[in-house]
Amino acid sequence: MKLPYVIWWRLAEMAEFFNVLPPDDARALLLSQIQPLTQSERLPTIEALGRVTTDDIYAPHPLPAFRRSTMDGYAVRAQDTYGASEALPGFIQVVGEVHMGHAADVELEVGQATLVHTGAMLPFSADAVVQVEHTQLAGSPDPHDYPYEIEIYRAVAAGQNVIQVGEDVPEQALIIEAGAMLRPQDIGGLLALGITSISVRRQPRVMILATGDEIVSPMETPRLGQIRDINSYAVAGQCIRAGALPVIMGIVPDDFAALKDAAGKALADGDIVVMSAGSSVSVRDMTVDVIDSLGEPGVLFHGVATRPGKPTIAGVVNGKPVLGLPGNPVSAIIQFDMFGVPVVYQLLGINRLPPRERIQARLTQNIPSESGREDYVPARLEESPDGFWVTPVFGKSNLIYTLVNADGLVKVPLNRGGLLAGESVEVRLF
Amino acid sequence: MKLPYVIWWRLAEMAEFFNVLPPDDARALLLSQIQPLTQSERLPTIEALGRVTTDDIYAPHPLPAFRRSTMDGYAVRAQDTYGASEALPGFIQVVGEVHMGHAADVELEVGQATLVHTGAMLPFSADAVVQVEHTQLAGSPDPHDYPYEIEIYRAVAAGQNVIQVGEDVPEQALIIEAGAMLRPQDIGGLLALGITSISVRRQPRVMILATGDEIVSPMETPRLGQIRDINSYAVAGQCIRAGALPVIMGIVPDDFAALKDAAGKALADGDIVVMSAGSSVSVRDMTVDVIDSLGEPGVLFHGVATRPGKPTIAGVVNGKPVLGLPGNPVSAIIQFDMFGVPVVYQLLGINRLPPRERIQARLTQNIPSESGREDYVPARLEESPDGFWVTPVFGKSNLIYTLVNADGLVKVPLNRGGLLAGESVEVRLF
Repeated sequence: MKLPYVIWWRLAEMAEFFNVLPPDDARALLLSQIQPLTQSERLPTIEALGRVTTDDIYAPHPLPAFRRSTMDGYAVRAQDTYGASEALPGFIQVVGEVHMGHAADVELEVGQATLVHTGAMLPFSADAVVQVEHTQLAGSPDPHDYPYEIEIYRAVAAGQNVIQVGEDVPEQALIIEAGAMLRPQDIGGLLALGITSISVRRQPRVMILATGDEIVSPMETPRLGQIRDINSYAVAGQCIRAGALPVIMGIVPDDFAALKDAAGKALADGDIVVMSAGSSVSVRDMTVDVIDSLGEPGVLFHGVATRPGKPTIAGVVNGKPVLGLPGNPVSAIIQFDMFGVPVVYQLLGINRLPPRERIQARLTQNIPSESGREDYVPARLEESPDGFWVTPVFGKSNLIYTLVNADGLVKVPLNRGGLLAGESVEVRLF
Repeated sequence: MKLPYVIWWRLAEMAEFFNVLPPDDARALLLSQIQPLTQSERLPTIEALGRVTTDDIYAPHPLPAFRRSTMDGYAVRAQDTYGASEALPGFIQVVGEVHMGHAADVELEVGQATLVHTGAMLPFSADAVVQVEHTQLAGSPDPHDYPYEIEIYRAVAAGQNVIQVGEDVPEQALIIEAGAMLRPQDIGGLLALGITSISVRRQPRVMILATGDEIVSPMETPRLGQIRDINSYAVAGQCIRAGALPVIMGIVPDDFAALKDAAGKALADGDIVVMSAGSSVSVRDMTVDVIDSLGEPGVLFHGVATRPGKPTIAGVVNGKPVLGLPGNPVSAIIQFDMFGVPVVYQLLGINRLPPRERIQARLTQNIPSESGREDYVPARLEESPDGFWVTPVFGKSNLIYTLVNADGLVKVPLNRGGLLAGESVEVRLF
């Protein structure tokens, strides 16, 4: 872009007055302006992995719906076993077998039992199970010819080796809250109760724009002075991982009218707009002006106290978040992780963020930093018998291969002037 | 299933002689018998997120391909700035501007510079950049009318504020190894070098069978004594997360011939066979017999020293892994995580397992256990200002909602007879 030098120079001076916020404050400010999407869709439960529930879900019936044995053995009336021991076994008459998958329709009289397998239903008149290892056949009966007698070597209490009706989930219990991102076991839990379809939040559409006269599509061969757009595709991958649908809109020239036009269309079509802008001050300021020109409230902050990623821009227009990421890919990826992913979660209405994946590890070397700024240093983990060790992948913050060679980021907190070799630190995994 | 009682009884006795292995030994034995899949497919790089590379990939050209400025400022010959200071500024003649996305075709004479923006190409005769904040216009020149003079307040060394050719990646450098599971930044790194398609490993097909006369499809309404199949769908979700393609084959009756037939078909069509068997000893032993009947070497182990999940069965038939998971869903899910997921990774040929997601947290209460067995206790995390605390979700090990209500598993090591409240433990996140 060809701004007159005087204007460019003035913009450079203005950049010194960035409203630089601590990252936690910046994120809180942004999230405070965004509401979860209101639209939902109904899906078969078996296709809902990773999707987010819109409603509290209650158990339509107790689970299990009938009393089940947790052992292979004999369903008994517990009181009939009292006093039984190795020295003085009790005698019980086996009157039949409960077959797997069938109702236990045997009626037990005093001193009677039925053969049960693990998971089988208990007869209504039984209240405990003696496991087979604590019994022995009395004599050599034909086991198809009920009744016959067994000896019991241990007494059982009422309820022993039995799962009660509703012990897993009582009827009408709240089983999954609105805003839960469904995991494999949640899918299982829903299906166990016959909940075969559910309402989930529509996936946010993230519209991704790249700007910069030096940027070309990765499908093209760049000329000298040009570089390939990689931020659009890396951010798209981050969106997919967070549960959003990325839409890559391509490359927009470094021109206010063109960028405003493209951002306006993106805002109309999507739920989040991400502009991966150039890194020069003039381009960043143009991004600010474009966001402010699109509607209210516009830019919320311009600059966060982190490295990399200080010049990150965030705003809200008509309730939709708009992010201006730095042009350099390391900053763009780390900043999308810090601001874009939480925004996606907010739009999805996630009620409880999954605990952030992180590992405690000891540093193999010092990491210098400046107080008053959060640093995120790409780092590589090695597991050794005495635990994890982590080594920073140093390099200028705009080298994408520092991230390719890293397992995660070591955070240097706002008020620490660096970290020391041997110190135990937290590594946020990618 | 209706085995004669005598046989059932004998099987129950045999079960006491399970070949129970420590879980790490069991996993190592299983993985030692499995080779990565040989088939690959070629994909556009932008569609390869989460896929695994089959080949080492080398940089076709250096990155960046030209020297770039990391600052807004002036591209200079460093020696022309030597001695410049606030007290005694140097003077430099600005002879033009390098526009973004264009080759820097200016030739600098001694004492000359060009205006550059962040990310722009450096002229061949320049070797450093003075950032704009350390300069001032000399007088009031018309900035479109080159040349004009600026004052420089700080000297720069050769290479300062410049990314050199190949500083991110030198030409022919190994950039991504065979067996890497691609993350967003890896996609970005490949595209930065114009690598727009790559060879990835075919995704393993996991054939999932459920057996048990008490099991019905979750789409059906169970009668008394019946329960819905949930293991097939929970395990399918775990497969998807691990990078495999699950194929749900449905429910097979508790019958040797039927199970052998179904498992044989699964083995022919897929890369891994998972049988979620019933929990009774007779059904588990039938699973062992089926695996052994399918081919060599057959069952490798029957039983691991863990709770839940002790009766896990694993084998290999004609190079393909076959798992027999316990019928109870908590055991099935935890055991698939412990054995199925590593098997998927092995078939994918992953060269370096992603560091397992885990968090250090302090226990809010004691966890009892028995020495000689690894326990995995579902647990829920709470973050507090002094770090993470973790509370076990107690319940019989066959209650699916213990997993639904948990964030991860606390491992009680093989040789610990339990854990104490206040102790710092590792939580493996789901």
